[in-house]
Amino acid sequence: MNVDGQPCRTIWLAADGVSVQVIDQRRLPHEFATLPLRTLDDAVLAIRDMAVRGAPLIGATAAFGVALGLKADPTDAGLRSAVSRLIASRPTAVNLAWAARAVATVVEPLAPARRFEAALGEAQRICEDDVACSRDIGAHGAQLLATLAPANRPLQVLTHCNAGWLATVDWGTALAPIYRARQQGMAIHVWVDETRPRNQGASLTAWELGQQGVAHTVIADNAGGHLMRQGKVDVCIVGADRVAANGDVCNKIGTYLKALAAFDNRIPFYAALPHSTIDWSLPNGDSIQIEERDAGEVHTIAGLDSRGNLTTVRLTPSGSAAANYAFDVTPARLVSGLITERGVAAASPEGLARLYPSR
Amino acid sequence: MNVDGQPCRTIWLAADGVSVQVIDQRRLPHEFATLPLRTLDDAVLAIRDMAVRGAPLIGATAAFGVALGLKADPTDAGLRSAVSRLIASRPTAVNLAWAARAVATVVEPLAPARRFEAALGEAQRICEDDVACSRDIGAHGAQLLATLAPANRPLQVLTHCNAGWLATVDWGTALAPIYRARQQGMAIHVWVDETRPRNQGASLTAWELGQQGVAHTVIADNAGGHLMRQGKVDVCIVGADRVAANGDVCNKIGTYLKALAAFDNRIPFYAALPHSTIDWSLPNGDSIQIEERDAGEVHTIAGLDSRGNLTTVRLTPSGSAAANYAFDVTPARLVSGLITERGVAAASPEGLARLYPSR
Repeated sequence: MNVDGQPCRTIWLAADGVSVQVIDQRRLPHEFATLPLRTLDDAVLAIRDMAVRGAPLIGATAAFGVALGLKADPTDAGLRSAVSRLIASRPTAVNLAWAARAVATVVEPLAPARRFEAALGEAQRICEDDVACSRDIGAHGAQLLATLAPANRPLQVLTHCNAGWLATVDWGTALAPIYRARQQGMAIHVWVDETRPRNQGASLTAWELGQQGVAHTVIADNAGGHLMRQGKVDVCIVGADRVAANGDVCNKIGTYLKALAAFDNRIPFYAALPHSTIDWSLPNGDSIQIEERDAGEVHTIAGLDSRGNLTTVRLTPSGSAAANYAFDVTPARLVSGLITERGVAAASPEGLARLYPSR
Repeated sequence: MNVDGQPCRTIWLAADGVSVQVIDQRRLPHEFATLPLRTLDDAVLAIRDMAVRGAPLIGATAAFGVALGLKADPTDAGLRSAVSRLIASRPTAVNLAWAARAVATVVEPLAPARRFEAALGEAQRICEDDVACSRDIGAHGAQLLATLAPANRPLQVLTHCNAGWLATVDWGTALAPIYRARQQGMAIHVWVDETRPRNQGASLTAWELGQQGVAHTVIADNAGGHLMRQGKVDVCIVGADRVAANGDVCNKIGTYLKALAAFDNRIPFYAALPHSTIDWSLPNGDSIQIEERDAGEVHTIAGLDSRGNLTTVRLTPSGSAAANYAFDVTPARLVSGLITERGVAAASPEGLARLYPSR
């Protein structure tokens, strides 16, 4: 997708051929900056501190992270340590473990001296696979949106958090159908949930929709239910951090509330995700580990002050505690379907098995 | 309730006997300051800019506002103008119109020279009535909480926005049962929804619970559904800005989403309100006018910076639009009951009519 009219990805191999560049998403929307990853530590930190975030993108970053680890220590012990440190950097998105293990599987049989190059190659292949998946999610999703588009006004889409190109290598998951449909000429307006506490909607989704020229309006996370009751939402599309084999969707905290409101108002509710987000080992979403992040993310928020400086302000009284659950699980019964690179699946064991028969 | 251990109300007649003092709630939790209201303009501005907020408190402020208007112009025209300007200051809470009209009804038959004193007296009577209602809501609500209290751990209550003593003259509506139950020795912990965009939960509810020594944890508005699915909430209690005759509850934006989650998890969901919040003229909540406030409240947020200065920061990209709906309507079918000064009513025409037979 575009940044100031120029095509850009969220992660790429730097010109030196041995380090990786990512967009530092902590500084958006106020500043566009890139961050070099030269070591395993850099990759772990970028994931943990959310310079990169979004399930597919942290998968891609983990893949490169294994390579960066092997650059310093290409032994079996070095490989094991890199994979386990990356997997431990954030617990909920399954793409992280999937990508790190995929690279490990490729390089493990090789002599240590050949592992770094092979890992880099596999990481790049994972990135290309992610771009292809996102593009295909966009195509299948755009077909779906076409069936929902009203004749005489723009289609009203509500999304939560950021599952756009910034959450993937390119195109996005939840937003890919919107970008694709727009290219095909469909009129669309997007309601963007702010997505406290880290405000990925207000900062990242609003920014990337603006950069692509998609009409959008930021709303407080509280507003979506009212909009749906008022008939102002035609469809909800969100991303996913982990989908269980029965179609339960683990995604950014607050997703479940929007799914309930969509169900109550008979509005279709879709999650969009590539195959790497499906955790076939889980019969349902109940056992997914929900990350608890630092309470400081609830106590404070950062934005631009009147002098244009990025400033963090405290919102709560000094004596109050805060809790910060990062994800929730939306039961499959509330999900109209899963938009994948292979098509739209029913959110059920049968629906997923039909698209992925070899699992 | 207490501020730094000293009893305090949210509004009172100043020592001069002709002006009114309110707590300036825009500066909490970071600073406790009072604001004098000397004119009708002062009262209208305090309501519109939310120096005072909460349905019962803006009712009390409107009552005093009529008196302040009559101080300057005690004629029939002055009375009509004061009432209509106050009613227009915010559209959703019915207490505002109820209180302004109640004062007008008392003073209208009087000679202009006697109206100011009589209006002040009626405003004070309305305040005392509100305190009595809140205290009785607390008593009925505490009885209800006692039936829900687990044997071996604190009762877990979730609340949205601020319906505490800061939203009333004293005691509160949703929080009054908690204060009363605590006085009776019940162990309680409160999950406090942040309540974007104006953060009345994080700033006001957290502050007043802290001042009364009630254990509480601030959460993002997105988190409540997850907590309910995890069994971490025993009961939800919220306030109300307007309740229709069928029990539909209009309250702070986002209330509906929490009611859906409570219903989905079979957790009781109550609204607490005095008689002045019931709009008997409305058969249901569909026609309640939902206030749309300035988009700036979504684009920006205020808090304390690292130097202790109250600072407003911008959250969204400069090109993005925002929308700011202040309230939503929770259908009566999702409401377990209405906690009033007369007892707990079913959220239905019959339930309300049984408690208020003369309506």
